[in-house]
Amino acid sequence: MRVVYVLWILIPVMATAQVRYTGSNMTRPDNYREWVWLSSGFGMAYGPGTQAENPDPPFDNVFVNPEAYHAFLKTGAWPDRTVLVLEIRSSQQKGSINQHGHFQGDGARVEVHVKDAQRFPEKRWAFFMFGESAKSAAPAAADTTCFTCHEKSGAVDTTFVQFYPILRDIARQKGTLKPVN
Amino acid sequence: MRVVYVLWILIPVMATAQVRYTGSNMTRPDNYREWVWLSSGFGMAYGPGTQAENPDPPFDNVFVNPEAYHAFLKTGAWPDRTVLVLEIRSSQQKGSINQHGHFQGDGARVEVHVKDAQRFPEKRWAFFMFGESAKSAAPAAADTTCFTCHEKSGAVDTTFVQFYPILRDIARQKGTLKPVN
Repeated sequence: MRVVYVLWILIPVMATAQVRYTGSNMTRPDNYREWVWLSSGFGMAYGPGTQAENPDPPFDNVFVNPEAYHAFLKTGAWPDRTVLVLEIRSSQQKGSINQHGHFQGDGARVEVHVKDAQRFPEKRWAFFMFGESAKSAAPAAADTTCFTCHEKSGAVDTTFVQFYPILRDIARQKGTLKPVN
Repeated sequence: MRVVYVLWILIPVMATAQVRYTGSNMTRPDNYREWVWLSSGFGMAYGPGTQAENPDPPFDNVFVNPEAYHAFLKTGAWPDRTVLVLEIRSSQQKGSINQHGHFQGDGARVEVHVKDAQRFPEKRWAFFMFGESAKSAAPAAADTTCFTCHEKSGAVDTTFVQFYPILRDIARQKGTLKPVN
């Protein structure tokens, strides 16, 4: 009886880490806001662009499934089945009592970067981009800039750990942080 | 035997929600980065000030213990023993491949807003401010601006739910979101 009760608590906890596929399409993860948050950037852009002139650029919020986070704390590396979620959310200013700076608005696009050696044997990692209301997404093609930029500039494996404060310290300690450009 | 094994998994999960006190001082919470993240602001300021002229203002990252988060999703209100952690973290730009905007740096101050009717019978909530390396903090006095501003402008109870996207939607649905100024 106690075992049943405890499992009833545990099962939802364990289920938070899953992503689901239908054929080659990934279903939009619906519980990533309860995963471990890694960091948020504001108005970040990796090349020259119009972002600099946008007075209300988006926030970039990054989450990872808890199992992968705990493995990274121990090893400085991502285990298989790591799921990183990038939430790109609108920003706003001068709402309520806020006089300066920006807080987070409504409406968010989601991009998923997933490691799965069995499903993606060639590159081990794949990217899935979900529009604001998209429930399903196809994997990004292997020649997209997602891959080239992450492979060239990822500080750990193909991920941008250089922008995640806690994990960049861990990777430095474990000797897994690559110099990047 | 199975019960023991399952409890061995559960206990660390349950322990993440605790804050500890020594006398009236709170011990700095050390695991809040694994709690549920609510939102991050950039350069936010509630009054006229010098923040507007700072080219690298801080990020404000807000976390809550998972039990309180799940209760809020159901009710739109904070249960007793809610612990909100505000992490005020430095920002930087033009690091690695980043050309525009800001990402999060090292060094963080922590402020805790805790609801505990038994420990704080007068106001039910208390504030504790931790400097960058402080391991312990005394409760803020009841006449500080923490209390006056949160009591006047908190959208739910004395908390700034107006700045947390998911929870402000929940509070709107549950009818617990106060109009604020």
